Amino acid sequence: MTRICLTIEYDGSDYAGWQIQPNAVTVQACVEAALERVVGSPVRLYSSGRTDAGVHAAGMKAHFDVETLLPLSAYREGVNRALPSAIVIREAVVVADNFNARFDACGKWYQYQIYRSNIRSPLHRRISWQLGNALDLDKMIYAAQFFVGKHDFNAFRSSSCVSETSVRELYSFEIVEDGEMLLFNVRGRGFLKNMVRILVGTLVDVGIGRLAAETVEQLLLDGSRQDAGRTAPAHGLCLMDVWYEKM
Amino acid sequence: MTRICLTIEYDGSDYAGWQIQPNAVTVQACVEAALERVVGSPVRLYSSGRTDAGVHAAGMKAHFDVETLLPLSAYREGVNRALPSAIVIREAVVVADNFNARFDACGKWYQYQIYRSNIRSPLHRRISWQLGNALDLDKMIYAAQFFVGKHDFNAFRSSSCVSETSVRELYSFEIVEDGEMLLFNVRGRGFLKNMVRILVGTLVDVGIGRLAAETVEQLLLDGSRQDAGRTAPAHGLCLMDVWYEKM
Repeated sequence: MTRICLTIEYDGSDYAGWQIQPNAVTVQACVEAALERVVGSPVRLYSSGRTDAGVHAAGMKAHFDVETLLPLSAYREGVNRALPSAIVIREAVVVADNFNARFDACGKWYQYQIYRSNIRSPLHRRISWQLGNALDLDKMIYAAQFFVGKHDFNAFRSSSCVSETSVRELYSFEIVEDGEMLLFNVRGRGFLKNMVRILVGTLVDVGIGRLAAETVEQLLLDGSRQDAGRTAPAHGLCLMDVWYEKM
Repeated sequence: MTRICLTIEYDGSDYAGWQIQPNAVTVQACVEAALERVVGSPVRLYSSGRTDAGVHAAGMKAHFDVETLLPLSAYREGVNRALPSAIVIREAVVVADNFNARFDACGKWYQYQIYRSNIRSPLHRRISWQLGNALDLDKMIYAAQFFVGKHDFNAFRSSSCVSETSVRELYSFEIVEDGEMLLFNVRGRGFLKNMVRILVGTLVDVGIGRLAAETVEQLLLDGSRQDAGRTAPAHGLCLMDVWYEKM
């Protein structure tokens, strides 16, 4: 048995998220089907995590096992020929037999894009949240610093999140201006359901004056979901990278 | 009668180009239908030019006439509500009764995007030509300078181009690196059919060594279409702006 780890990029616009589910087209189902055509038997993928419907990825990681190892290019070029244009295998590497894409992950980098414009933009609509409101960037950058470090993010997870603990550690939270685009780079050890989208939605509420920056600090101490900001839409989010100590 | 000029942005991916035609969904047909819903009677749009199937626009211009002038926001917000998400009216302004979006244009700015990567990228696939080849940028920049000025671009137009003269004037031709993306900014008074796409395709052939940079100079003197490079694909091209002396 040989274990292989894939790096996968996808435009999530037309998919019901990563995870396989009945009666919906998901990224995992597409990649497993393409792998089966190359491997010759059913393949089960174990990913670093799920992404919501509409969320994109530049560097999703997922591992699977094969009995007979083919040249690695087969799991890249070969599988890519069987994949739709919205999904691609960027890399395929052999990893240790006990490597686990989910449990061995040291960290993840998510990027959220906000396009600031009073008029919706067809050319940016698939990859960014379009906001006409004037945003107070200084206040947002100030509030974002409270998120960095180890905190109880209970106020910043979906009410349907089933994780036992809501304590998570964020390594950094950077906000960058790039013309009309505003980039939120969020790096952390792990994330709760909808967490990045609620963090960004809360910062937007700070940016338009609906929430005070200090409220964010308080929410990390004793907040519940209804006290935090809205959930930013899925299509502005992209899982950029997942990294491991050894791979 | 009042004449109005629109600035229109669209993602051309799923359209058979700008110009209205039977049995195909075109941008012009969509905008005219949306205008008719707001104006209350059929509207004919006169654009600054056509764009090919798959080509995008950030600033297409087109004029039309109305008998009864509504508040200008009706031609923007009102029409936008009747348009699909891939098309938007960015601006609507009243112009002189004799203004003509095509014949009064002083210049146009086209941008072509090449994404340099050995692996196709789902997240960039709609707006860029993906090329795995290593490109010699210095040679391409050198060759591009021959295009600037007034020349006979006969070698750089589609064989189905029906324009009487093939003499055109380019104001500038700039190539900019932006990470893995290569941006071609082309400004000129007017363009022949497929001209920007053939100019870019020819520069790519120079960049990979299939054509000598000096050949470009010769092609402007006595070239025919088969001597120039290939036609770059439509989806990498975007009409950024059209400008006028008075508007």
